[in-house]
Amino acid sequence: MKFYDCSTAPSPRRVRIFIAEKNIKIETVELNLMKGEHMTSDYRSKNPNLEVPLLELEDGTTIPQVNAICRYLEDIHPDNPLHGRDPVEGALVEAANTKIQLDGFMAAAEAFRNFTPGLKDRAMPGPHNYAQIPELAKRGLLRLDNFLADLESHFESNEYMVSNYFSVADISALVCIDFAKWVKKPIPEDYKNLHRWYGTVSARPSCKV
Amino acid sequence: MKFYDCSTAPSPRRVRIFIAEKNIKIETVELNLMKGEHMTSDYRSKNPNLEVPLLELEDGTTIPQVNAICRYLEDIHPDNPLHGRDPVEGALVEAANTKIQLDGFMAAAEAFRNFTPGLKDRAMPGPHNYAQIPELAKRGLLRLDNFLADLESHFESNEYMVSNYFSVADISALVCIDFAKWVKKPIPEDYKNLHRWYGTVSARPSCKV
Repeated sequence: MKFYDCSTAPSPRRVRIFIAEKNIKIETVELNLMKGEHMTSDYRSKNPNLEVPLLELEDGTTIPQVNAICRYLEDIHPDNPLHGRDPVEGALVEAANTKIQLDGFMAAAEAFRNFTPGLKDRAMPGPHNYAQIPELAKRGLLRLDNFLADLESHFESNEYMVSNYFSVADISALVCIDFAKWVKKPIPEDYKNLHRWYGTVSARPSCKV
Repeated sequence: MKFYDCSTAPSPRRVRIFIAEKNIKIETVELNLMKGEHMTSDYRSKNPNLEVPLLELEDGTTIPQVNAICRYLEDIHPDNPLHGRDPVEGALVEAANTKIQLDGFMAAAEAFRNFTPGLKDRAMPGPHNYAQIPELAKRGLLRLDNFLADLESHFESNEYMVSNYFSVADISALVCIDFAKWVKKPIPEDYKNLHRWYGTVSARPSCKV
């Protein structure tokens, strides 16, 4: 099994933390996205979406996307479950994780990709080129303000993303908050509940990757 | 158990089809989104995101979001699995389903919500208001062109979204294609592979809802 990674990008970091929490060893192939190593014909044949992370199995099957990879790894290594310990908890983790993807990662990506000069016609990842929309960068920043405020409110009465259970949704939220710093949206100083949660989660050994 | 539905909206239709495929009976509560029945304080207390679908369990626990609800229903009704029959297939279904969400539904929603006069400050669903961005409506249409072309290419060599296995990803793709018609993006006439797949899937009794 091979894990195609990029040590500077947010999405593969979510998988790295997941792998560390699960205490699994997987051979890693580092791709330099700045040098376009995800745009080669060899990589395109593995992942037509040209994205990392990617998991390549022994028989050549390739699994793209963070959530698909994490679910697969959980299925084959069920100890220490990070997707919920029963059906209800599993559903709440899925809902929390999706909310972070849609309200957090997408917002940060909108802000970052529609603003960064080096990504002029690459406002979205993947095989198709799209021009930047400056208004969308601004909206991404507004959405991040709301995302952080919603999290602060959530952590007033919850230890983790789902009640008192550390899950894959906490991994996603941590990486998303670190990604938001790229567009100068740190956690506001007075968000004491969010700071408390961030301090706890970022102190886990798995999250130092 | 109660299922909060809206018979005219795309997201709850995905759950309706899933329920029909599983042959489950669930009490349904119809909300009229045009009349703002998802904005009442009673519904807000059940779902702060103000979205349908929502599943309410006997003990009052509420599960929002299509994928979370479908996974929960699959966990408690595992016969006729729609999320994959083994870990690899499960991962490929998850990846396909996510791609439809990000490249299909998000694109159609961008096109629809940033253009429709009645949604002037409601360019995104949820509790926060965002102004429309006309350029984003245009980009949504471009993205739908690419989405449909990618599907046509996929169905050249696949019977369903994942190989020859009908899954929740096919339900998502069907509803997404019907949603794209709202912004006048039907399947192009010469996409014979996509038409073949669409004909097969839309003929299933479950999909008549």
